[in-house]
Amino acid sequence: MRQEKDLIGVHLVPDDVYYGIQTLRATENFPITGYHPHRELIRALGMVKGAAAEANMHIGALSPKIGKAIVQASKELTEGQLHDQFVVDVIQGGAGTSMNMNANEVIANRAIEILGGSKGEYFKVHPNTHVNMAQSTNDVFPTAIRIACLNVAGDLLEALDSLRQAFEDKAQEFDGVIKMGRTHLQEAVPIRLGQEFAAYAQMLGRDVKRIKEAIRSLEVINMGATAVGTGLNADPRYIEKVTGLMSEWTGLPLRLAEDLVDATQNTDVFMEVSGSLRTLAVNLSKIANDLRLMASGPRTGLSEINLPPMQPGSSIMPGKVNPVIAEVVNQVAFQVQGNDFTIGLACGAGQLELNVMEPVVVFNLLQSLDILRNVTRVFRDRCVVGITANIDRCRVMVENSVGLVTAINPHVGYEVASTIAKEAILYGRPVSEIVLEKGILTKEELDLILNPYEMTRPGIAGAELLK
Amino acid sequence: MRQEKDLIGVHLVPDDVYYGIQTLRATENFPITGYHPHRELIRALGMVKGAAAEANMHIGALSPKIGKAIVQASKELTEGQLHDQFVVDVIQGGAGTSMNMNANEVIANRAIEILGGSKGEYFKVHPNTHVNMAQSTNDVFPTAIRIACLNVAGDLLEALDSLRQAFEDKAQEFDGVIKMGRTHLQEAVPIRLGQEFAAYAQMLGRDVKRIKEAIRSLEVINMGATAVGTGLNADPRYIEKVTGLMSEWTGLPLRLAEDLVDATQNTDVFMEVSGSLRTLAVNLSKIANDLRLMASGPRTGLSEINLPPMQPGSSIMPGKVNPVIAEVVNQVAFQVQGNDFTIGLACGAGQLELNVMEPVVVFNLLQSLDILRNVTRVFRDRCVVGITANIDRCRVMVENSVGLVTAINPHVGYEVASTIAKEAILYGRPVSEIVLEKGILTKEELDLILNPYEMTRPGIAGAELLK
Amino acid sequence: MRQEKDLIGVHLVPDDVYYGIQTLRATENFPITGYHPHRELIRALGMVKGAAAEANMHIGALSPKIGKAIVQASKELTEGQLHDQFVVDVIQGGAGTSMNMNANEVIANRAIEILGGSKGEYFKVHPNTHVNMAQSTNDVFPTAIRIACLNVAGDLLEALDSLRQAFEDKAQEFDGVIKMGRTHLQEAVPIRLGQEFAAYAQMLGRDVKRIKEAIRSLEVINMGATAVGTGLNADPRYIEKVTGLMSEWTGLPLRLAEDLVDATQNTDVFMEVSGSLRTLAVNLSKIANDLRLMASGPRTGLSEINLPPMQPGSSIMPGKVNPVIAEVVNQVAFQVQGNDFTIGLACGAGQLELNVMEPVVVFNLLQSLDILRNVTRVFRDRCVVGITANIDRCRVMVENSVGLVTAINPHVGYEVASTIAKEAILYGRPVSEIVLEKGILTKEELDLILNPYEMTRPGIAGAELLK
Amino acid sequence: MRQEKDLIGVHLVPDDVYYGIQTLRATENFPITGYHPHRELIRALGMVKGAAAEANMHIGALSPKIGKAIVQASKELTEGQLHDQFVVDVIQGGAGTSMNMNANEVIANRAIEILGGSKGEYFKVHPNTHVNMAQSTNDVFPTAIRIACLNVAGDLLEALDSLRQAFEDKAQEFDGVIKMGRTHLQEAVPIRLGQEFAAYAQMLGRDVKRIKEAIRSLEVINMGATAVGTGLNADPRYIEKVTGLMSEWTGLPLRLAEDLVDATQNTDVFMEVSGSLRTLAVNLSKIANDLRLMASGPRTGLSEINLPPMQPGSSIMPGKVNPVIAEVVNQVAFQVQGNDFTIGLACGAGQLELNVMEPVVVFNLLQSLDILRNVTRVFRDRCVVGITANIDRCRVMVENSVGLVTAINPHVGYEVASTIAKEAILYGRPVSEIVLEKGILTKEELDLILNPYEMTRPGIAGAELLK
Repeated sequence: MRQEKDLIGVHLVPDDVYYGIQTLRATENFPITGYHPHRELIRALGMVKGAAAEANMHIGALSPKIGKAIVQASKELTEGQLHDQFVVDVIQGGAGTSMNMNANEVIANRAIEILGGSKGEYFKVHPNTHVNMAQSTNDVFPTAIRIACLNVAGDLLEALDSLRQAFEDKAQEFDGVIKMGRTHLQEAVPIRLGQEFAAYAQMLGRDVKRIKEAIRSLEVINMGATAVGTGLNADPRYIEKVTGLMSEWTGLPLRLAEDLVDATQNTDVFMEVSGSLRTLAVNLSKIANDLRLMASGPRTGLSEINLPPMQPGSSIMPGKVNPVIAEVVNQVAFQVQGNDFTIGLACGAGQLELNVMEPVVVFNLLQSLDILRNVTRVFRDRCVVGITANIDRCRVMVENSVGLVTAINPHVGYEVASTIAKEAILYGRPVSEIVLEKGILTKEELDLILNPYEMTRPGIAGAELLK
Repeated sequence: MRQEKDLIGVHLVPDDVYYGIQTLRATENFPITGYHPHRELIRALGMVKGAAAEANMHIGALSPKIGKAIVQASKELTEGQLHDQFVVDVIQGGAGTSMNMNANEVIANRAIEILGGSKGEYFKVHPNTHVNMAQSTNDVFPTAIRIACLNVAGDLLEALDSLRQAFEDKAQEFDGVIKMGRTHLQEAVPIRLGQEFAAYAQMLGRDVKRIKEAIRSLEVINMGATAVGTGLNADPRYIEKVTGLMSEWTGLPLRLAEDLVDATQNTDVFMEVSGSLRTLAVNLSKIANDLRLMASGPRTGLSEINLPPMQPGSSIMPGKVNPVIAEVVNQVAFQVQGNDFTIGLACGAGQLELNVMEPVVVFNLLQSLDILRNVTRVFRDRCVVGITANIDRCRVMVENSVGLVTAINPHVGYEVASTIAKEAILYGRPVSEIVLEKGILTKEELDLILNPYEMTRPGIAGAELLK
Repeated sequence: MRQEKDLIGVHLVPDDVYYGIQTLRATENFPITGYHPHRELIRALGMVKGAAAEANMHIGALSPKIGKAIVQASKELTEGQLHDQFVVDVIQGGAGTSMNMNANEVIANRAIEILGGSKGEYFKVHPNTHVNMAQSTNDVFPTAIRIACLNVAGDLLEALDSLRQAFEDKAQEFDGVIKMGRTHLQEAVPIRLGQEFAAYAQMLGRDVKRIKEAIRSLEVINMGATAVGTGLNADPRYIEKVTGLMSEWTGLPLRLAEDLVDATQNTDVFMEVSGSLRTLAVNLSKIANDLRLMASGPRTGLSEINLPPMQPGSSIMPGKVNPVIAEVVNQVAFQVQGNDFTIGLACGAGQLELNVMEPVVVFNLLQSLDILRNVTRVFRDRCVVGITANIDRCRVMVENSVGLVTAINPHVGYEVASTIAKEAILYGRPVSEIVLEKGILTKEELDLILNPYEMTRPGIAGAELLK
Repeated sequence: MRQEKDLIGVHLVPDDVYYGIQTLRATENFPITGYHPHRELIRALGMVKGAAAEANMHIGALSPKIGKAIVQASKELTEGQLHDQFVVDVIQGGAGTSMNMNANEVIANRAIEILGGSKGEYFKVHPNTHVNMAQSTNDVFPTAIRIACLNVAGDLLEALDSLRQAFEDKAQEFDGVIKMGRTHLQEAVPIRLGQEFAAYAQMLGRDVKRIKEAIRSLEVINMGATAVGTGLNADPRYIEKVTGLMSEWTGLPLRLAEDLVDATQNTDVFMEVSGSLRTLAVNLSKIANDLRLMASGPRTGLSEINLPPMQPGSSIMPGKVNPVIAEVVNQVAFQVQGNDFTIGLACGAGQLELNVMEPVVVFNLLQSLDILRNVTRVFRDRCVVGITANIDRCRVMVENSVGLVTAINPHVGYEVASTIAKEAILYGRPVSEIVLEKGILTKEELDLILNPYEMTRPGIAGAELLK
């Protein structure tokens, strides 16, 4: 055990750990969820610390010897090393200070080691004086959050576009499948199954666009803002340099905020991103609901489509297969909406120069991004691409439907059409039978009007009869 | 126009209005929703003011002449008079002060009138000195909210119990209707339609109980707390008297809070009540969803039940009838959940000795109570009582279902049963056919096992075969 | 009373009303909130009906005589006439069919009147056959919602930009006011009051941009989609024509959706818009919270700024003035967040070809737009423009703060600085006194470092000392 | 690797794992959050399986040899063994089937081992036929959820009552500390710090009561309901026996639901419990906000109380200490509210005989219980018990406040009092000075009235002067 000291007093720290006293206190203060920081957040902290050290070396504030050791240690974090040294709970007080100090301490001790020293010899490399030089939690942490989110969001967008494409492919495949369109869960007018899948693809396309636009706001960072955005203790030459270096370290098109005070205290961009994820979640949920409904059955439901069976569905009912992938999509959607709620509450709790609730924001935002990316992949691979259509059943339902009467409407007027519909429902008879029996239209006229393909394209079916 | 004066300055007030300068300022400050205060809230304010005047007369703080005039004016409010003089917006700053002052001013001017004076002659009856004697907005307003909510909640509970009863009646009516039970929207095992309706009744019974319990917390009031709950400026004899008088005026079993500081600053009881309404809303929504699903059709859906047709369903599709009452139930449920969210946010915004956000709390809470009461009545009268079952269709679906295989399970083992199910689905054949063909069971054994009535009661269908 | 007839049966309708049987049934079916349709929604329906009639005349489907009468009646709606004939509740089942039929019936009867007939003589102008020609609720209602929202959103954006400008003006006015910056409600480092107000302006600027972008998605309409987006019964020439006419009627840059099936069933654009409003709401709430905190007092709070007094604050505490405008901003923010929740639930309830929950969506969305516009105006006019600063008090607090130690940090190192801070807190002494007493820095050095103006700009205060 | 087979096909399973093919498929289907099942849920499943096996042995359906092995394996789960074999993701499709099968497979393989067999020899003990005998996921999983929640809730209640007690102790300690009461963040009238802490204790007392009541609804279980609540395949003697055995295994007063269909499909009890946690969360958040506000400073805030310093507060500002424990309370409160939202959405998604979204419900409910318990302990131990009061500062603020004027009100009338207040604010002078200068009251009268202790108890301060 080595002894470390801070503002509060001294504390023993295990010899072999890279973190120090402040991290240790944080673990004692925040035994909340048991979840450790997100891998991408640790990596992003590595990028921030590395870029800051380079900027500080560049302006001569940090000696090359210390600076290079810090850069090397930071790089190790970005490569996934030492992640087990990040032990602060994801829900923590202090606006991320503990997370920042965890990074400062781990990097300092690793840098000391690189320089041949022993952990705890902070006179060689100091967590605050050197690793955190010209920085504050209040610019480091929001910047790291943004980078982490951008990285996971990139994966999500890729997975999402791939899902969108899968729906588009299915739209092609099912273009010729006539089925009954339903509004209010009541039969309306015919539609092609391909049209339905195309609509899903179209909606997801909007989500891709929306998320892309929303995350652009994350590219604006506030490195150099220090404590409250005034930039106190950050050399102007450092500020000028560090954002460009951050872009290099991250490979992302980062920009310095125009107003650093604003960028330090306000968190609306996280709401904006979370809001776009929530809309995606609701959209995915709608699609999952539709698929579950269309696949309902096997004998006593709509049975228009089949979802690929992925696992036995019941511990008691042999042969039962459930739409488990669609169901997990729904549940992820619920989780993302709840996360968005939490994020909204936390973003609304900013006070004056800072929003100290950012840890719970980033925990939820990264979780939403993660689980949406994961479920999007599963949804595509284990559900959508394997969907098949029950073509005959779809067609038979169209032929038996009352909804066909809508097509007759322009030819006979709303009131006559209503009467036919009423009778069809009352006596359980096909619409066509009644029309013929009553001599309202001839067989030839009817065939022209009730051509189902005709009825799924704009225009009056059998328009030529009206001329 | 008469001239009135307050802390801010002078202001002209129209001659004919009963409210005064403070109400007028509030209308200028809060042109937000355009909605006026709830009738029950105005009535409750009348009760508070009347009871307070009586208590003040009782201890000799208020002269009988002035006191009686205030009591009479207050009574008029409880009878629905002068409600058009309550013109403050439902969403208002100031923790309800404007609403309290609106009541104080209307009652003062009406009392002045009763005493033969002219509106604005506040030396005769003063809104603050006399009408508001020993009171603060911070005890008046929370107390009035509670009374208003209790009154509307009473109506809701009555309507809700009546709806519950309607489901119970239907449970009796549909007790003999065999239908397919579904889990994951996939057929599971048979169930009786009556069992489903009984489950709805049971759930609503829990809601009745839950709401009843929750609103009991509203019976605790804080009259006498004055500004922050310390009771400054409220005579102890007045405090002792006023709650009992409040019970008389309202006919409700009101109790004085043990801790007036707590009762003045904390609003968790409103969350508790709203939470119980939200659970009801979600439950109603679940029932409405089920009914819409079971009534889906007419030809291309489940068509197990029929909802009574209430209006034509489409402006373009003749004969279409939609489940409009169930749909309005869903929408009210969404509204109530959103209201609950707003209430939660507002209740979380208390600071130190007061939660100034109570106006938006009461607006949403009363709206939730109102629309739940209204929709519960409509749901019962225009939907539930008129539901009919498609008995034959329900039975045929059971006979064709794959779900029957579960009943065979105990007789043949899970793996054999799975194989039968798989084959039934693959080739679209009835389960019974396959079982017989393969010689797994005899016709007699099968009939015993697959008796649908047998299958909707606890136990192994055909248990005697296993002996 | 006149007798009218529909699918359900006959019903008496009062002679003098312009609406007909279907509207009447809807009022009976939906006695929910008691609120009538939004003025802008009625106007938008007038625009839709007028443009549709013109398009139908253009292609020869509607006779000029009937068509012109419909156009005139529609125009009257857009001008605010006959709005009292719109009596359907804002929360209604049926996906807006009742609202569409209310418009169809009012326009039909008004058109009949224009043509010299009597109300109810639908053979002259029929609500469905003529007024609703080539339309469905499912294209009419979503289109009308979009137009109504765009119109109110325009007003909101104007008010919001004006509020943003007011903060910018105050930022200029307060540019020289030094005050203590606070993070975690603990003093951090100095900041200028003007910087704080500039940050508010900056944030609101993002909101303006965000809302502008979000509402662009509302410009995509689906006229011609009819029941499920396939365009059945809508003449392709009509579809081609009607969107352009809609742009003329509305003065908005409307575009026809690429995929009408998608545009008819999906409601994610409403979530997108509501999401942008929610972010604005949270941002406004943050600003209101800050203002209330900085204006806390008068003697026992921060008292850094004064909000203009708008009304007496208490019915019991003389002289008390409360931040009522800021409080109503908070409450509107809560309401908008609750509305957004409701909208999210409703948008998540779409099924297959339609989301029947649109009525509750539009009720909440228009309310959010309305109250945000209203409160934004009030916030600007009755609060922000009148804010004054307590310059001396702000300065004195900076001089007494412990936060000054941060500026000394680069000159003495983190650990020495920590010790000074600790001592300053422990003994209640000014930082500067301790530094001088201990001989850590000279008076001259200290003056250079602790120049408050220096401390609110990027860089190390007293950087020249380090050279 | 061993080969296993199910409805879908064959799959290799690693030799050393106790779970089987269905668990493995689930891990492949649901790579969502990466979080494994909650320890208490696994333990509860052990209790369910053990009790069911005993009941099945009791009625002779299960041979003692197999039954005893199952019981022993189940017991091991309850003791925390084999928990690493529970590898299904917390968010999973299939209504918990995968979780139930994970338990069935682990217990079966462990039982096989106990009986001397090798993993995978399911003819010895079969996961479905034996371990799951007379059960369905739809009674097992809801029952296990309830038990797990009850167990964690017990810990929460204990921690919460302890926190409540800590506030009560502080209320005693601070009973004599006079301070300014504030409403609207504006000074109102004096209050004692002890009164404020007593109010917190009172509020938390309500939470204890509320949660206790809510969780009683979890004691109602549905063992024997099997698939849809009809009890198909569950021997009535088994049903009669199993609930009592469950009570023994769990030590909880469990009761069988009156209506098993209802108990199987409806999830409102989870909303009820989550709702009570949400109210607690909001209440804790209010307290945390108040503490942070009262502890704001050290020099430029209210500084009425001191929270114990737990860790350095800043990486850049030496000496800064932040209210980190209060902040983590706020964040847990946000998380719990978001979880409650997710739970509400999931509970609203039940359809017909089942709510398949229970996995996401239990994940969020157990997380809420966990983090509330954890943060409640930390809040008590690391914050509340160490709070100290700045007695002198509190007293001085009272003496300088304008709020004192309220006490004078009954002696001079509202309008005179208003004028004094206005002047006090305008010229920054003490209220008492003005009153004396203007000769409104004598020094003796004033001393009597303005006694601060007098002002924090019910009644008119200086009431004897009015006689």
